[in-house]
Amino acid sequence: MKRIVIGIDLGGTIVRAGAFDEQGHMLSAREIPIEAPRGPELGLRKIQKLIEQVQAESGTDSLVGIGIGSTGPVDPIRGRIHNPFTLPTWDDVPIVEWVQKAFNVSVTLENDADVAALGEYWQGAGQSVKKLFAVTAGTGIGTALIEEGQIYRGMDGLHPEAGHTILDPNGPLCYCGAHGCWESLCAGPSIVRDVLKRDLSDSSLLQMAGGDHEKIDACMIADAARNGDPVARQTMEKAARDFGLGIVNIIINFVPEMIVLSGGLMRSSDLFLPAMQEAIEAHSILIPAKQVRILPAQLGYHAGLYGAAYTIWSTENEQFKR
Amino acid sequence: MKRIVIGIDLGGTIVRAGAFDEQGHMLSAREIPIEAPRGPELGLRKIQKLIEQVQAESGTDSLVGIGIGSTGPVDPIRGRIHNPFTLPTWDDVPIVEWVQKAFNVSVTLENDADVAALGEYWQGAGQSVKKLFAVTAGTGIGTALIEEGQIYRGMDGLHPEAGHTILDPNGPLCYCGAHGCWESLCAGPSIVRDVLKRDLSDSSLLQMAGGDHEKIDACMIADAARNGDPVARQTMEKAARDFGLGIVNIIINFVPEMIVLSGGLMRSSDLFLPAMQEAIEAHSILIPAKQVRILPAQLGYHAGLYGAAYTIWSTENEQFKR
Repeated sequence: MKRIVIGIDLGGTIVRAGAFDEQGHMLSAREIPIEAPRGPELGLRKIQKLIEQVQAESGTDSLVGIGIGSTGPVDPIRGRIHNPFTLPTWDDVPIVEWVQKAFNVSVTLENDADVAALGEYWQGAGQSVKKLFAVTAGTGIGTALIEEGQIYRGMDGLHPEAGHTILDPNGPLCYCGAHGCWESLCAGPSIVRDVLKRDLSDSSLLQMAGGDHEKIDACMIADAARNGDPVARQTMEKAARDFGLGIVNIIINFVPEMIVLSGGLMRSSDLFLPAMQEAIEAHSILIPAKQVRILPAQLGYHAGLYGAAYTIWSTENEQFKR
Repeated sequence: MKRIVIGIDLGGTIVRAGAFDEQGHMLSAREIPIEAPRGPELGLRKIQKLIEQVQAESGTDSLVGIGIGSTGPVDPIRGRIHNPFTLPTWDDVPIVEWVQKAFNVSVTLENDADVAALGEYWQGAGQSVKKLFAVTAGTGIGTALIEEGQIYRGMDGLHPEAGHTILDPNGPLCYCGAHGCWESLCAGPSIVRDVLKRDLSDSSLLQMAGGDHEKIDACMIADAARNGDPVARQTMEKAARDFGLGIVNIIINFVPEMIVLSGGLMRSSDLFLPAMQEAIEAHSILIPAKQVRILPAQLGYHAGLYGAAYTIWSTENEQFKR
């Protein structure tokens, strides 16, 4: 019977599950709202049912393990989620132990940025890249470093948060405690905040938002910038410049062979990438930054499922090891 | 007969050599001026003689290998030094091949920041630390990451230069091409440049320098700051704040277990470390930065010799491998 692994991607809104064979084929996949504020017990029961459905639909009974990627912070060593930020009420939830008991297979827990990057390493844009860096820019900026197929881990297995490194000490205050961290300068909500600080009387934005400031979102700002709206344009140009400087810092700190970009911001890649290339050109004196390949991610919102499954395959099978 | 390895530390001014046994004892050491602008051939002959002397003084003939740490950029894979910045005339010098021919033993070449960090890992402040980050701040800011005793290498074996990551896009232009990189904000020459931009009419600095602007150096500024000179104090406070932000970025990017600090700036650690601690306190929301141990290096200017020797021992002896 065909052996499968199930990958879980637990986000703040949606939880997804997918069944994968050893060759990296996704045999079945499903998603449901996690409704985190209703508590971890309901959430865990939802996850259990999702796993059962995906396994049934995969057409096999031979489940080797379950890999979980979750919106951070997670504790991969103790197998616990403690996330007051995006999973309210999920305080110190022993998800690995719980899923292990329910299915009696090996279970892993990793940060969602790490598993998305691993997915791209296994079956996406970064296949076999020795030093692969991944940047997901949307509501926030998440990052991951994959070294020869292994997740980079800091002290106590902690996941670094390069999205919160300081890029401009005169920038806005972020919830992380920093002024002008990368995320505070160019994630989606930061772009909206920046535009709202400007004089919008000559801008088309208010009209686009039906006269309601609160309805202005990053996509709208990008569209207005494309249509030549001067305020939207200035805002996007600043965000794009800062995004480029953040990418330059990643290159100088890590000198990866490849950077894979994903997330909502990439829908505005026409606005972001030229400024990024310009920044890279200007900062190639000490490090040949221009030689770093920068590519869009290939697996979309399934990347996390692939990577979560890979965390099991890579420990089960010698062939996956370096 | 006792087996030894010789470590070389090739700087822009001085070249040092030391002989080490497997237990990490330094049996002999010597140094001479490299006189780089007189050309690599003279330099290589000087290095050969230095190795011969150190080996003779170590009291053994059994030379296992020679590890070289050099002021960067170096190419550890091809064994070549190409350094127009601090070793003028040393253009694409095949130092590994040359030393190998002269002594018929295995020879390695690494960046000097990497070998200094390895030295601290082997016999200094960072012994057995799984993720060890080293920062040398003086004329410039050099950095290194040691993962379980292995040098972190980027694309093509390149050494990352975290000292040149951007910290303030409104800061001064650095030779690296960036505005406001870490080094441009708080290395020694940057502190001097910053003070010279200020109004010195109420400062004791000009008097300390005998009336000559050009004689003001970083040590003088630190002394003046300690004595309450307001201009010197403001300058040092800004540099210390920026140094602290740079350390915060290292922690957020790498989450090392330990950061080892060395270099001339550490002579002013009384002025730098309080601001660093303050910055770390303020940025511990997402990453428990306060838990990262930050210690002064222990091996002083011998760190590079230890680490260069270790590059040979760690490949020769299984016991050194993880």
